[in-house]
This record gives sequence, structure tokens and C-alpha cells, in this order.
Amino acid sequence: MTTAHHQDRMQAQITFILEIDKLKRVLRRNTLIDGSRRENDAEHSWHLGMLAMVMGEHAEPGVNLDRVVRMLLVHDIVEIDAGDTFIYDVVAVEAQEAAEQAAAERIFGLLPAEQAREFQELWEEFEARATPEARFAKALDRLAPIMANHHNEGGTWALYKVTASQVLEKVAIIVAGSATLGAFATELVEMSVARGHLAP
Amino acid sequence: MTTAHHQDRMQAQITFILEIDKLKRVLRRNTLIDGSRRENDAEHSWHLGMLAMVMGEHAEPGVNLDRVVRMLLVHDIVEIDAGDTFIYDVVAVEAQEAAEQAAAERIFGLLPAEQAREFQELWEEFEARATPEARFAKALDRLAPIMANHHNEGGTWALYKVTASQVLEKVAIIVAGSATLGAFATELVEMSVARGHLAP
Ligand SMILES: [Ca+2]
Repeated sequence: MTTAHHQDRMQAQITFILEIDKLKRVLRRNTLIDGSRRENDAEHSWHLGMLAMVMGEHAEPGVNLDRVVRMLLVHDIVEIDAGDTFIYDVVAVEAQEAAEQAAAERIFGLLPAEQAREFQELWEEFEARATPEARFAKALDRLAPIMANHHNEGGTWALYKVTASQVLEKVAIIVAGSATLGAFATELVEMSVARGHLAP
Repeated sequence: MTTAHHQDRMQAQITFILEIDKLKRVLRRNTLIDGSRRENDAEHSWHLGMLAMVMGEHAEPGVNLDRVVRMLLVHDIVEIDAGDTFIYDVVAVEAQEAAEQAAAERIFGLLPAEQAREFQELWEEFEARATPEARFAKALDRLAPIMANHHNEGGTWALYKVTASQVLEKVAIIVAGSATLGAFATELVEMSVARGHLAP
């Protein structure tokens, strides 16, 4: 390996790091827990990484939590190009898939080839939910906005007229990754309905 | 273990997760790479986690990168109570230590006892820089604002009248964690001086 090779390699890594700064400007529908402003994808990804570190005991036994953390840090990067899709907007969710694939190729493709592959695989694993790590990561991604809305008198549920049965479909994804967190999310949904913050 | 015990335990974990949402409202001095607004501690911590995932080959051989990622996700949580300290403000940096210790006890103390200990130790390891993992984590924490300022025509350096020799003191911390990233940071500082974006 020549010095020029090493310099090109580091330059590619730096280019990627600078590019993903844009994730801090991709806004989600939900707000911060205090309701003060909309949350962005970068701080959301951090919060999910922390959730994984704290909630590990609620994953299936043997789950590699470090891989879950990495998956969660990477999972939304495609939204730099593809934008955030509201999970209750079915038409948008379908159109999103091609856009996200293209985004993954462009953005992860900024990295040296074997790192590009590594990040692409991590993202695809998350999306496919075929491993216990991906199912747990996805469960946390679904749990976070339910917690935020529950603490915000319904938050985006009220705003976008989402009903409890729609939320409970998402809760099924949480159950698939963690029985206890799924039960907890179900409780939050029931409390929100009881308080009149979520339409039944 | 009773069901009540399990419920208390999960409630403690949820309380911690809701509390650390506040990190999204702690603003740093530096801006996003595009200069559009100040960066917050939560999105900064995400970006550092990504830096660790991408730049692992620049750490000392044998460094546990997953521990580095965890350390970086946790490292600024104390600033929820203690606030961000500008690293070039020497008086503030000293007063900060007691405030951060108290913050660590309060915030990590929301968790079940053994998790509180685990997070406290991770944070103390980072602060003490006594392990290769902590030195690498600290190097990335120092590198990020140098990259941001370099891409922002000097950014906070100009604003707070920081000189190259002050920045190079921080670069020594990067060198201690990674020789190649230290050399890269030195180059950025020299380029910024040459372009007139940083006082010599
Ligand atoms: Ca800091």
C-alpha cells in the first residue's frame, strides 16, 4: 500500500463523514419529548443507540447488542437523499424503497469499497428484519415515537389523525423484537386511548 | 425476582431514556458543517459514533471499537445539567469538573444500580483517557470541531479569537489517540492558517 493509497482512503472516509452531517437536517414528524420542536434523524439515531445500550436485557438472549447499536446509528442515513417517510403513509412507504436503495448506494459508496459493503449490509439487515439484532433494532425504532407521542398528549397521532389500531400494527413489530417492550408499548397505547390522546 | 421488581426496573430505564432526551437541547459552540445553525450534543454524539465506526483503522491495534462507540454515545450526557464548556475557556473548564461529577451521579443514578455503575465507569474512563479506547474516543471528540471549523472558514475560531497554537494544544490530544488522525488535524490547522481563517 502506497502513501497515496492511504491518503485516498482517508479522504474517502472524511468525505463520507462530512456528507452524513446532513442527517442533522432531516426532520422527523415527531417532536422532542418536551414538544419544543421536531426531532432530526441524527439525534433520533443517538437516542436509539442509547435505548439499545439500556434495554439490552429485553432483547432475545444472545443478541449482539454492539451490532444493534451500529445498525441503529446507520439505519436512517439513506434519508439524507430519500427523506423521512411517515410510517402511516402507505403509498409513500412503497415509493420510498427504490429511493432508499439509490441513496444507500450513493452515500455508503463514498466510503472505501469494503466499508461501503459493510455499511450497506448493516442497513439491509435492519430493513429485512431477518436477524434477532435487526428485529430488536426495529423494535426500538418503533418504540421511540410511541414514547414521545405518549408524553406529548398524542403528539403526531392527533396531528395526522392516526388511530389506535394503526399504532397497534406498529406495536406488532415491537413484539417481534422484544416481548416485554411490546407489552410496554401496548400499555402506552391503551393509556393514550384512555386519556383521549389517541382515537380508538 | 418479582413482577413488581421487573416493572420498577423497566420504569427506571424508561425514566433515564426520557431524561436524556434533554441532550438534544444542549447547544455546542460550533455549527453544523454547512454553518446553518449550532450543533446540539445529541447529534454531535451520533456523529462521533459514526466517526468511530468509520475510522477504526486509525486507532491503536486491538482497540475495542464497540466500547469506543458506547463511550462516545454517553460522553456528553453530563452536560444536560452541567452545560457545554468551551474547551478554550480554562477557568470554566476547571469549575466544570465538580458540576459534571454531580450530573453523572444524578442522571446515571436514574438507572438500576448496576447499569448506573456501568455508565458512570464508561464516562469516567473517557474523561481519564487512561485506556486506548478512551484516548481514541477523545481524539474523535477533538477532531470533529476542527473539521467543522475548517469547513466553515474558521467558524468558532474566528468568533472566539482562538489562535493556531491553542488549537494545536488540542491536536496533541488527537495525536495521543491516533497518530494518523493527529497528522490529519495538524494539516487542517495549517491549511486554515494559510487561508487566513485561523490566527497563527
Ligand atoms: Ca463536550
